[in-house]
Amino acid sequence: MSDFKETRLSSEEIFQGRVVHLFRDRIRLPNGKESTREVIRHSGAVCVLPVTDEGEAVMVRQYRYPFSCIMLEAPAGKLDPGEAPLAAARRELSEETGVEAAEIIELGAFYPSVAYTDEVIHLYLARGLTFLQQHPDEDEFLDVARIPLKRLVADVLEGRIPDGKTQCIILKAAARLRAE
Amino acid sequence: MSDFKETRLSSEEIFQGRVVHLFRDRIRLPNGKESTREVIRHSGAVCVLPVTDEGEAVMVRQYRYPFSCIMLEAPAGKLDPGEAPLAAARRELSEETGVEAAEIIELGAFYPSVAYTDEVIHLYLARGLTFLQQHPDEDEFLDVARIPLKRLVADVLEGRIPDGKTQCIILKAAARLRAE
Repeated sequence: MSDFKETRLSSEEIFQGRVVHLFRDRIRLPNGKESTREVIRHSGAVCVLPVTDEGEAVMVRQYRYPFSCIMLEAPAGKLDPGEAPLAAARRELSEETGVEAAEIIELGAFYPSVAYTDEVIHLYLARGLTFLQQHPDEDEFLDVARIPLKRLVADVLEGRIPDGKTQCIILKAAARLRAE
Repeated sequence: MSDFKETRLSSEEIFQGRVVHLFRDRIRLPNGKESTREVIRHSGAVCVLPVTDEGEAVMVRQYRYPFSCIMLEAPAGKLDPGEAPLAAARRELSEETGVEAAEIIELGAFYPSVAYTDEVIHLYLARGLTFLQQHPDEDEFLDVARIPLKRLVADVLEGRIPDGKTQCIILKAAARLRAE
């Protein structure tokens, strides 16, 4: 299938914002025609689901401006410049929930929108939890909630948790813990 | 938690492309300070996993420019203007794979990136399949593959399928079929 390849001819920076860094590239299609691709270049992110020995997941509720509502999500955040994903997972977990974890287990990568961004979210399961004080960023507002993982799995399967990375990390973490 | 609300003060259109429609809004934070939010407004999309009576899922492989590689995904696509999600699911399924389905089952909504886009992907499971000829868009290049759903579930859990919507729809469809 190497004949599916799209070749970049040129790249134009459209916008550099706080979150979105947008390019429009001219490309050559497999059939020889020219076209364009809009791509949001992203530095990467992490999402980590802490689960207590009693089977409770530590989740956050925060306001999501694109949907004008509060959403229930697994703790997550962007990588700092030069930061390794595992270090970012521990940092975001501590900042957003105050949780420190004795064990962090990789659950694989999650690409949120392969059509128009190169963003990669690294997923982790955190075990062996110690609860300290949360310390979110100055302009970050969120509530922490402890919810049984079994209930979250049912919520995902019945369509009550719309955030994509959160649906995925809940189902993957539950499968991983069932297999132990 | 109504005090988490972010209030829009103004909105500026930054870019309207073929896929990305980007705005930068000025907002008021819960603490009274002003800030900005970058939002990609999206018309919505569908993703549909067809599964045969023998437990094989019909998947597509296509080149994804942001990652410069071919990816294995469930059939998916954007809503046409004014199109209902269920109609779009049947259309995309037919165009990309040539499959017609006697039964389409809702698997809920999937929000790929709640921080910066209002995109909603409606997920469906398709059963009772008839295989006809695929007829993709003129500039769309993809291969169809029939793969046992059980193998796909293992691939997701072991981190071998990075596309987010595809991970989610495989795990949700498998849970739904196990429950039948």
